[in-house]
Amino acid sequence: MSKPHYQQISDSIEAQIRSGALLANSKLPSERQLSDAFATTRVTLREALSRLEGKGLIYRANRRGWYITPSRINYNPTQRLPFNEVVSGQGRRPDTHILAQQLAPAEPAVHKALGLAPLTPLHRVRRLRSIDGHAVLLEENHLDPARFPGLERHDLSRSLTRLFEQEYGVRIATMELNMYPLALDEERAQALGVATGAAALFISRLSRDEAGRVIELDWEYWRHDALNIQLSV
Amino acid sequence: MSKPHYQQISDSIEAQIRSGALLANSKLPSERQLSDAFATTRVTLREALSRLEGKGLIYRANRRGWYITPSRINYNPTQRLPFNEVVSGQGRRPDTHILAQQLAPAEPAVHKALGLAPLTPLHRVRRLRSIDGHAVLLEENHLDPARFPGLERHDLSRSLTRLFEQEYGVRIATMELNMYPLALDEERAQALGVATGAAALFISRLSRDEAGRVIELDWEYWRHDALNIQLSV
Repeated sequence: MSKPHYQQISDSIEAQIRSGALLANSKLPSERQLSDAFATTRVTLREALSRLEGKGLIYRANRRGWYITPSRINYNPTQRLPFNEVVSGQGRRPDTHILAQQLAPAEPAVHKALGLAPLTPLHRVRRLRSIDGHAVLLEENHLDPARFPGLERHDLSRSLTRLFEQEYGVRIATMELNMYPLALDEERAQALGVATGAAALFISRLSRDEAGRVIELDWEYWRHDALNIQLSV
Repeated sequence: MSKPHYQQISDSIEAQIRSGALLANSKLPSERQLSDAFATTRVTLREALSRLEGKGLIYRANRRGWYITPSRINYNPTQRLPFNEVVSGQGRRPDTHILAQQLAPAEPAVHKALGLAPLTPLHRVRRLRSIDGHAVLLEENHLDPARFPGLERHDLSRSLTRLFEQEYGVRIATMELNMYPLALDEERAQALGVATGAAALFISRLSRDEAGRVIELDWEYWRHDALNIQLSV
Protein backbone atom coordinates (compact mmCIF):
# COMPACT_ATOMS: atom_id res chain seq x y z
CA MET A 1 0.00 0.00 0.00
CA SER A 2 2.85 2.42 0.69
CA LYS A 3 3.78 4.69 -2.19
CA PRO A 4 7.43 5.40 -2.94
CA HIS A 5 8.63 8.61 -1.33
CA TYR A 6 9.07 10.51 -4.62
CA GLN A 7 5.46 9.71 -5.47
CA GLN A 8 4.19 10.96 -2.10
CA ILE A 9 6.03 14.21 -2.75
CA SER A 10 4.74 14.60 -6.30
CA ASP A 11 1.18 13.76 -5.17
CA SER A 12 1.45 16.38 -2.46
CA ILE A 13 2.65 19.08 -4.89
CA GLU A 14 0.06 17.99 -7.45
CA ALA A 15 -2.74 18.37 -4.88
CA GLN A 16 -1.58 21.91 -4.18
CA ILE A 17 -1.50 22.77 -7.88
CA ARG A 18 -4.96 21.31 -8.48
CA SER A 19 -6.38 23.11 -5.46
CA GLY A 20 -5.37 26.40 -7.08
CA ALA A 21 -3.00 27.26 -4.21
CA LEU A 22 -0.14 27.49 -6.75
CA LEU A 23 -0.97 29.82 -9.62
CA ALA A 24 -0.14 29.32 -13.31
CA ASN A 25 3.37 30.54 -14.23
CA SER A 26 4.29 31.11 -10.61
CA LYS A 27 7.66 29.80 -9.48
CA LEU A 28 8.06 26.78 -7.22
CA PRO A 29 10.43 27.15 -4.27
CA SER A 30 14.02 26.19 -5.14
CA GLU A 31 15.03 22.52 -5.21
CA ARG A 32 17.02 23.09 -2.05
CA GLN A 33 14.03 24.61 -0.26
CA LEU A 34 11.76 21.80 -1.46
CA SER A 35 14.10 19.01 -0.42
CA ASP A 36 14.34 20.63 3.02
CA ALA A 37 10.56 21.01 3.23
CA PHE A 38 9.96 17.36 2.31
CA ALA A 39 12.95 16.16 4.34
CA THR A 40 14.31 14.30 1.35
CA THR A 41 17.37 14.13 -0.89
CA ARG A 42 17.82 16.13 -4.09
CA VAL A 43 17.74 12.86 -6.07
CA THR A 44 14.33 11.86 -4.71
CA LEU A 45 13.03 15.38 -5.09
CA ARG A 46 14.11 15.44 -8.73
CA GLU A 47 12.29 12.16 -9.34
CA ALA A 48 9.16 13.80 -7.95
CA LEU A 49 9.66 16.91 -10.08
CA SER A 50 10.24 14.84 -13.26
CA ARG A 51 7.00 13.04 -12.58
CA LEU A 52 5.14 16.36 -12.33
CA GLU A 53 6.87 17.56 -15.49
CA GLY A 54 5.80 14.36 -17.26
CA LYS A 55 2.21 15.02 -16.25
CA GLY A 56 2.56 18.50 -17.74
CA LEU A 57 1.96 20.15 -14.36
CA ILE A 58 5.27 21.99 -14.05
CA TYR A 59 7.86 23.21 -16.53
CA ARG A 60 11.47 24.23 -16.27
CA ALA A 61 12.50 27.66 -17.48
CA ASN A 62 16.13 27.65 -18.63
CA ARG A 63 18.26 27.82 -15.49
CA ARG A 64 15.63 29.80 -13.65
CA GLY A 65 13.82 27.02 -11.82
CA TRP A 66 10.47 25.29 -11.94
CA TYR A 67 7.13 26.91 -12.75
CA ILE A 68 3.48 25.90 -12.67
CA THR A 69 2.19 25.00 -16.14
CA PRO A 70 -0.85 27.03 -17.19
CA SER A 71 -3.86 25.02 -18.35
CA ARG A 72 -3.88 23.89 -21.98
CA ILE A 73 -5.53 26.12 -24.55
CA ASN A 74 -8.32 24.42 -26.50
CA TYR A 75 -7.58 24.65 -30.18
CA ASN A 76 -9.42 23.38 -33.23
CA PRO A 77 -6.94 23.43 -36.13
CA THR A 78 -9.64 22.67 -38.72
CA GLN A 79 -11.11 26.09 -38.12
CA ARG A 80 -8.94 28.94 -39.32
CA LEU A 81 -9.61 31.10 -36.29
CA PRO A 82 -6.81 33.61 -35.59
CA PHE A 83 -4.53 32.76 -32.66
CA ASN A 84 -5.50 36.02 -30.94
CA GLU A 85 -9.19 35.14 -31.03
CA VAL A 86 -8.65 31.56 -29.87
CA VAL A 87 -6.59 32.72 -26.89
CA SER A 88 -8.55 35.81 -25.86
CA GLY A 89 -11.80 33.83 -26.30
CA GLN A 90 -10.57 31.65 -23.42
CA GLY A 91 -9.86 34.61 -21.18
CA ARG A 92 -6.11 34.50 -21.80
CA ARG A 93 -3.74 37.12 -23.14
CA PRO A 94 -2.17 36.44 -26.58
CA ASP A 95 0.99 38.02 -27.89
CA THR A 96 2.98 37.68 -31.12
CA HIS A 97 6.62 38.47 -31.68
CA ILE A 98 8.10 38.43 -35.20
CA LEU A 99 11.41 36.55 -35.12
CA ALA A 100 12.24 36.70 -38.81
CA GLN A 101 10.78 37.69 -42.10
CA GLN A 102 12.67 37.09 -45.28
CA LEU A 103 12.60 36.26 -48.98
CA ALA A 104 14.67 33.10 -49.22
CA PRO A 105 14.54 29.50 -50.41
CA ALA A 106 13.33 26.89 -47.91
CA GLU A 107 13.61 23.12 -47.58
CA PRO A 108 12.76 21.12 -50.72
CA ALA A 109 9.52 19.81 -49.13
CA VAL A 110 8.23 23.38 -48.81
CA HIS A 111 8.90 24.22 -52.45
CA LYS A 112 7.20 21.02 -53.51
CA ALA A 113 4.10 21.74 -51.39
CA LEU A 114 3.87 25.29 -52.76
CA GLY A 115 4.42 24.10 -56.33
CA LEU A 116 7.50 26.31 -56.72
CA ALA A 117 10.80 25.40 -58.36
CA PRO A 118 13.60 24.47 -55.91
CA LEU A 119 15.63 27.43 -54.68
CA THR A 120 12.99 30.02 -55.69
CA PRO A 121 12.99 32.68 -52.96
CA LEU A 122 9.74 32.60 -51.00
CA HIS A 123 8.20 34.60 -48.18
CA ARG A 124 9.13 33.07 -44.87
CA VAL A 125 7.62 34.49 -41.71
CA ARG A 126 8.66 33.14 -38.34
CA ARG A 127 6.70 34.18 -35.28
CA LEU A 128 6.82 33.36 -31.60
CA ARG A 129 3.38 33.36 -30.03
CA SER A 130 2.71 33.46 -26.34
CA ILE A 131 -0.15 33.09 -23.90
CA ASP A 132 -0.10 35.21 -20.73
CA GLY A 133 3.52 36.04 -21.44
CA HIS A 134 4.56 32.38 -21.78
CA ALA A 135 5.93 31.29 -25.21
CA VAL A 136 3.85 28.35 -26.48
CA LEU A 137 4.04 28.33 -30.26
CA LEU A 138 6.69 28.78 -32.91
CA GLU A 139 4.95 29.38 -36.23
CA GLU A 140 6.59 29.31 -39.66
CA ASN A 141 4.56 30.49 -42.64
CA HIS A 142 5.74 29.90 -46.21
CA LEU A 143 4.15 31.87 -49.05
CA ASP A 144 4.59 32.40 -52.77
CA PRO A 145 5.81 35.99 -53.28
CA ALA A 146 4.14 36.18 -56.72
CA ARG A 147 0.85 35.72 -54.96
CA PHE A 148 1.49 38.12 -52.08
CA PRO A 149 3.49 41.05 -53.48
CA GLY A 150 4.52 43.61 -50.87
CA LEU A 151 3.72 41.27 -47.99
CA GLU A 152 6.69 42.62 -46.05
CA ARG A 153 5.07 46.08 -45.86
CA HIS A 154 2.17 44.80 -43.76
CA ASP A 155 1.96 44.26 -40.02
CA LEU A 156 2.74 40.54 -39.80
CA SER A 157 2.09 40.25 -36.09
CA ARG A 158 -1.63 40.15 -36.86
CA SER A 159 -3.60 37.23 -38.28
CA LEU A 160 -2.23 36.23 -41.70
CA THR A 161 -5.58 34.64 -42.59
CA ARG A 162 -7.25 38.03 -42.12
CA LEU A 163 -4.45 39.75 -44.00
CA PHE A 164 -4.89 37.41 -47.00
CA GLU A 165 -8.61 38.19 -47.05
CA GLN A 166 -8.50 41.92 -46.43
CA GLU A 167 -5.41 42.94 -48.42
CA TYR A 168 -5.27 40.32 -51.17
CA GLY A 169 -8.87 39.08 -51.46
CA VAL A 170 -7.62 35.53 -50.93
CA ARG A 171 -9.82 33.24 -48.89
CA ILE A 172 -8.93 29.77 -47.57
CA ALA A 173 -11.37 27.12 -48.81
CA THR A 174 -9.70 23.81 -47.97
CA MET A 175 -6.85 22.63 -45.74
CA GLU A 176 -4.72 19.52 -45.45
CA LEU A 177 -3.52 18.97 -41.91
CA ASN A 178 -0.78 16.69 -40.63
CA MET A 179 -0.10 16.56 -36.90
CA TYR A 180 2.39 14.54 -34.92
CA PRO A 181 4.55 14.74 -31.81
CA LEU A 182 8.24 15.35 -32.38
CA ALA A 183 11.36 16.32 -30.46
CA LEU A 184 12.50 19.89 -31.11
CA ASP A 185 15.81 20.47 -32.82
CA GLU A 186 18.29 22.79 -31.13
CA GLU A 187 17.37 25.92 -33.05
CA ARG A 188 13.59 25.64 -32.64
CA ALA A 189 13.95 24.61 -29.01
CA GLN A 190 15.99 27.76 -28.35
CA ALA A 191 13.36 29.90 -30.08
CA LEU A 192 10.70 28.41 -27.78
CA GLY A 193 12.95 28.64 -24.73
CA VAL A 194 12.92 24.90 -24.00
CA ALA A 195 15.62 22.23 -23.91
CA THR A 196 16.83 20.67 -27.16
CA GLY A 197 14.89 17.48 -27.78
CA ALA A 198 11.87 18.64 -25.77
CA ALA A 199 8.58 17.16 -26.97
CA ALA A 200 6.39 19.35 -29.16
CA LEU A 201 3.28 18.90 -31.22
CA PHE A 202 3.91 19.70 -34.86
CA ILE A 203 0.99 20.84 -37.02
CA SER A 204 1.45 21.33 -40.75
CA ARG A 205 -1.35 23.07 -42.61
CA LEU A 206 -1.49 23.43 -46.38
CA SER A 207 -4.23 25.89 -47.33
CA ARG A 208 -5.86 26.27 -50.74
CA ASP A 209 -8.36 28.67 -52.25
CA GLU A 210 -11.67 27.77 -53.94
CA ALA A 211 -9.83 27.01 -57.19
CA GLY A 212 -7.54 24.55 -55.38
CA ARG A 213 -4.52 26.83 -55.67
CA VAL A 214 -2.11 26.67 -52.73
CA ILE A 215 -2.20 29.78 -50.51
CA GLU A 216 0.37 28.93 -47.87
CA LEU A 217 2.16 26.21 -45.97
CA ASP A 218 2.02 26.84 -42.23
CA TRP A 219 4.20 24.92 -39.79
CA GLU A 220 3.33 25.16 -36.11
CA TYR A 221 5.53 23.86 -33.28
CA TRP A 222 3.54 23.83 -30.03
CA ARG A 223 4.95 23.23 -26.57
CA HIS A 224 3.76 19.74 -25.65
CA ASP A 225 1.95 20.97 -22.55
CA ALA A 226 0.31 24.08 -24.05
CA LEU A 227 -2.55 22.84 -26.14
CA ASN A 228 -5.46 20.46 -26.33
CA ILE A 229 -6.67 19.78 -29.84
CA GLN A 230 -10.43 19.72 -29.79
CA LEU A 231 -12.61 18.49 -32.62
CA SER A 232 -16.29 17.68 -32.90
CA VAL A 233 -17.62 15.61 -35.77
CA MET B 1 31.15 25.25 -41.30
CA SER B 2 32.25 22.16 -39.38
CA LYS B 3 29.47 20.24 -37.70
CA PRO B 4 30.01 18.80 -34.23
CA HIS B 5 31.13 15.19 -34.34
CA TYR B 6 27.91 13.76 -32.85
CA GLN B 7 25.98 15.53 -35.61
CA GLN B 8 28.23 14.10 -38.34
CA ILE B 9 27.55 10.65 -36.91
CA SER B 10 23.79 11.13 -36.65
CA ASP B 11 23.67 12.61 -40.18
CA SER B 12 25.56 9.61 -41.48
CA ILE B 13 23.21 7.11 -39.81
CA GLU B 14 20.18 9.18 -40.90
CA ALA B 15 21.34 9.08 -44.52
CA GLN B 16 21.56 5.30 -44.33
CA ILE B 17 18.08 5.03 -42.85
CA ARG B 18 16.57 7.35 -45.46
CA SER B 19 18.32 5.49 -48.28
CA GLY B 20 16.47 2.36 -47.20
CA ALA B 21 19.71 0.52 -46.40
CA LEU B 22 18.47 0.01 -42.82
CA LEU B 23 15.03 -1.57 -42.71
CA ALA B 24 12.17 -0.72 -40.34
CA ASN B 25 12.36 -2.58 -37.01
CA SER B 26 15.84 -3.91 -37.79
CA LYS B 27 18.42 -3.64 -35.04
CA LEU B 28 21.30 -1.18 -35.15
CA PRO B 29 24.76 -2.56 -34.34
CA SER B 30 25.56 -2.36 -30.61
CA GLU B 31 26.75 0.93 -29.10
CA ARG B 32 30.20 -0.59 -28.73
CA GLN B 33 30.32 -1.61 -32.40
CA LEU B 34 29.04 1.81 -33.49
CA SER B 35 31.52 3.76 -31.40
CA ASP B 36 34.31 1.62 -32.87
CA ALA B 37 32.97 2.12 -36.40
CA PHE B 38 32.81 5.91 -35.99
CA ALA B 39 36.04 6.04 -33.99
CA THR B 40 34.31 7.97 -31.22
CA THR B 41 33.50 7.76 -27.53
CA ARG B 42 30.34 6.23 -26.09
CA VAL B 43 29.32 9.69 -24.83
CA THR B 44 29.50 11.24 -28.30
CA LEU B 45 27.82 8.23 -29.86
CA ARG B 46 24.96 8.48 -27.38
CA GLU B 47 24.49 12.15 -28.25
CA ALA B 48 24.17 11.11 -31.89
CA LEU B 49 21.71 8.34 -31.03
CA SER B 50 19.58 10.68 -28.86
CA ARG B 51 19.41 13.07 -31.77
CA LEU B 52 18.13 10.30 -34.04
CA GLU B 53 15.66 9.22 -31.35
CA GLY B 54 14.44 12.82 -31.10
CA LYS B 55 13.84 12.88 -34.81
CA GLY B 56 11.81 9.69 -34.42
CA LEU B 57 14.21 7.72 -36.62
CA ILE B 58 15.29 5.13 -34.07
CA TYR B 59 13.75 3.74 -30.91
CA ARG B 60 15.12 1.87 -27.95
CA ALA B 61 13.61 -1.47 -27.03
CA ASN B 62 13.98 -2.13 -23.31
CA ARG B 63 17.56 -3.29 -22.73
CA ARG B 64 17.71 -4.87 -26.16
CA GLY B 65 19.33 -2.06 -28.12
CA TRP B 66 18.35 0.41 -30.81
CA TYR B 67 15.99 -0.22 -33.70
CA ILE B 68 14.92 1.61 -36.85
CA THR B 69 11.54 3.30 -36.43
CA PRO B 70 8.98 2.25 -39.03
CA SER B 71 7.28 5.08 -40.91
CA ARG B 72 4.30 6.72 -39.22
CA ILE B 73 0.85 5.37 -39.95
CA ASN B 74 -1.57 7.96 -41.34
CA TYR B 75 -4.63 8.14 -39.16
CA ASN B 76 -7.76 10.26 -39.31
CA PRO B 77 -9.41 10.06 -35.88
CA THR B 78 -12.56 11.84 -37.07
CA GLN B 79 -13.42 8.81 -39.17
CA ARG B 80 -14.34 5.74 -37.18
CA LEU B 81 -12.40 3.37 -39.37
CA PRO B 82 -11.29 0.18 -37.56
CA PHE B 83 -7.59 0.01 -36.63
CA ASN B 84 -7.21 -3.14 -38.73
CA GLU B 85 -8.51 -1.41 -41.85
CA VAL B 86 -6.40 1.71 -41.30
CA VAL B 87 -3.23 -0.34 -40.92
CA SER B 88 -3.80 -2.99 -43.59
CA GLY B 89 -4.96 -0.25 -45.99
CA GLN B 90 -1.40 1.10 -45.79
CA GLY B 91 0.15 -2.26 -46.55
CA ARG B 92 1.08 -2.96 -42.94
CA ARG B 93 0.15 -5.83 -40.65
CA PRO B 94 -2.14 -5.01 -37.69
CA ASP B 95 -2.49 -7.08 -34.55
CA THR B 96 -4.51 -6.72 -31.34
CA HIS B 97 -3.81 -8.27 -27.99
CA ILE B 98 -6.37 -8.04 -25.17
CA LEU B 99 -4.58 -7.05 -21.97
CA ALA B 100 -7.59 -6.82 -19.66
CA GLN B 101 -11.32 -6.91 -19.73
CA GLN B 102 -13.29 -6.30 -16.59
CA LEU B 103 -16.42 -4.92 -14.97
CA ALA B 104 -15.09 -2.35 -12.53
CA PRO B 105 -15.36 1.31 -11.60
CA ALA B 106 -12.97 3.72 -13.34
CA GLU B 107 -11.67 7.21 -12.65
CA PRO B 108 -14.33 9.82 -11.75
CA ALA B 109 -13.83 11.60 -15.13
CA VAL B 110 -14.88 8.43 -16.98
CA HIS B 111 -18.07 8.03 -14.95
CA LYS B 112 -18.91 11.67 -15.54
CA ALA B 113 -18.38 11.39 -19.31
CA LEU B 114 -20.54 8.25 -19.49
CA GLY B 115 -23.23 9.83 -17.28
CA LEU B 116 -22.93 7.03 -14.70
CA ALA B 117 -22.90 7.38 -10.92
CA PRO B 118 -19.43 7.23 -9.32
CA LEU B 119 -18.24 3.71 -8.50
CA THR B 120 -20.78 2.01 -10.83
CA PRO B 121 -18.98 -0.97 -12.40
CA LEU B 122 -18.45 -0.43 -16.11
CA HIS B 123 -17.01 -2.42 -18.98
CA ARG B 124 -13.33 -1.67 -19.32
CA VAL B 125 -11.43 -3.15 -22.21
CA ARG B 126 -7.70 -2.63 -22.52
CA ARG B 127 -5.97 -3.62 -25.72
CA LEU B 128 -2.45 -3.42 -27.06
CA ARG B 129 -2.36 -2.84 -30.79
CA SER B 130 0.65 -3.36 -32.98
CA ILE B 131 1.83 -2.69 -36.51
CA ASP B 132 4.16 -5.23 -38.14
CA GLY B 133 4.73 -6.79 -34.72
CA HIS B 134 5.69 -3.47 -33.09
CA ALA B 135 3.41 -2.22 -30.24
CA VAL B 136 2.19 1.29 -31.09
CA LEU B 137 -1.12 1.86 -29.33
CA LEU B 138 -2.57 1.20 -25.90
CA GLU B 139 -6.34 1.54 -26.14
CA GLU B 140 -8.75 1.75 -23.22
CA ASN B 141 -12.47 1.56 -23.94
CA HIS B 142 -15.08 2.40 -21.30
CA LEU B 143 -18.69 1.33 -21.81
CA ASP B 144 -21.97 1.30 -19.92
CA PRO B 145 -22.80 -2.39 -19.16
CA ALA B 146 -26.55 -1.64 -19.21
CA ARG B 147 -26.14 -0.68 -22.83
CA PHE B 148 -23.90 -3.58 -23.85
CA PRO B 149 -25.08 -6.66 -21.94
CA GLY B 150 -22.96 -9.76 -22.51
CA LEU B 151 -20.14 -7.76 -24.08
CA GLU B 152 -17.60 -10.05 -22.46
CA ARG B 153 -18.87 -13.00 -24.52
CA HIS B 154 -17.80 -11.43 -27.80
CA ASP B 155 -14.42 -11.42 -29.49
CA LEU B 156 -13.03 -8.09 -28.31
CA SER B 157 -9.91 -8.21 -30.43
CA ARG B 158 -12.00 -7.12 -33.41
CA SER B 159 -13.32 -3.62 -34.12
CA LEU B 160 -15.59 -2.47 -31.29
CA THR B 161 -17.30 -0.01 -33.65
CA ARG B 162 -18.33 -2.92 -35.89
CA LEU B 163 -19.34 -4.96 -32.83
CA PHE B 164 -21.64 -2.16 -31.61
CA GLU B 165 -23.29 -2.00 -35.01
CA GLN B 166 -23.59 -5.69 -35.76
CA GLU B 167 -24.42 -7.09 -32.33
CA TYR B 168 -26.19 -4.22 -30.62
CA GLY B 169 -27.54 -2.11 -33.51
CA VAL B 170 -25.74 0.90 -32.07
CA ARG B 171 -24.23 3.32 -34.56
CA ILE B 172 -21.88 6.22 -33.79
CA ALA B 173 -23.29 9.54 -35.04
CA THR B 174 -21.11 12.18 -33.38
CA MET B 175 -17.75 12.30 -31.61
CA GLU B 176 -15.95 14.73 -29.35
CA LEU B 177 -12.19 14.42 -29.70
CA ASN B 178 -9.45 15.75 -27.45
CA MET B 179 -5.83 15.14 -28.40
CA TYR B 180 -2.62 16.17 -26.71
CA PRO B 181 0.93 14.99 -26.12
CA LEU B 182 1.69 13.61 -22.66
CA ALA B 183 4.36 11.66 -20.85
CA LEU B 184 3.35 8.06 -20.11
CA ASP B 185 2.96 6.98 -16.52
CA GLU B 186 4.86 3.90 -15.38
CA GLU B 187 2.05 1.41 -15.87
CA ARG B 188 1.04 2.51 -19.37
CA ALA B 189 4.68 2.86 -20.42
CA GLN B 190 5.28 -0.74 -19.37
CA ALA B 191 2.23 -1.91 -21.31
CA LEU B 192 3.63 -0.21 -24.44
CA GLY B 193 7.16 -1.43 -23.76
CA VAL B 194 8.68 2.05 -23.52
CA ALA B 195 10.42 3.95 -20.74
CA THR B 196 8.37 5.67 -18.03
CA GLY B 197 7.83 9.28 -19.01
CA ALA B 198 8.19 8.58 -22.74
CA ALA B 199 6.21 10.97 -24.94
CA ALA B 200 2.90 9.73 -26.30
CA LEU B 201 -0.02 11.22 -28.15
CA PHE B 202 -3.22 10.87 -26.16
CA ILE B 203 -6.53 10.80 -28.04
CA SER B 204 -9.81 10.80 -26.12
CA ARG B 205 -12.95 10.08 -28.10
CA LEU B 206 -16.46 10.35 -26.67
CA SER B 207 -18.94 8.79 -29.10
CA ARG B 208 -22.70 9.34 -29.16
CA ASP B 209 -25.58 7.86 -31.13
CA GLU B 210 -28.12 9.78 -33.22
CA ALA B 211 -30.16 10.57 -30.10
CA GLY B 212 -27.08 12.10 -28.45
CA ARG B 213 -26.72 9.23 -25.96
CA VAL B 214 -23.14 8.34 -25.04
CA ILE B 215 -21.93 5.05 -26.53
CA GLU B 216 -18.38 4.85 -25.24
CA LEU B 217 -15.35 6.75 -24.03
CA ASP B 218 -12.23 5.60 -25.82
CA TRP B 219 -8.74 6.54 -24.62
CA GLU B 220 -5.84 5.96 -26.98
CA TYR B 221 -2.17 6.24 -26.04
CA TRP B 222 -0.03 6.24 -29.17
CA ARG B 223 3.74 5.93 -29.30
CA HIS B 224 4.92 9.42 -30.20
CA ASP B 225 6.71 8.20 -33.32
CA ALA B 226 4.01 5.85 -34.63
CA LEU B 227 1.35 8.06 -36.11
CA ASN B 228 0.62 11.05 -38.26
CA ILE B 229 -2.81 12.54 -37.75
CA GLN B 230 -4.19 13.49 -41.10
CA LEU B 231 -7.25 15.62 -41.67
CA SER B 232 -8.72 17.32 -44.70
CA VAL B 233 -11.32 20.04 -44.34
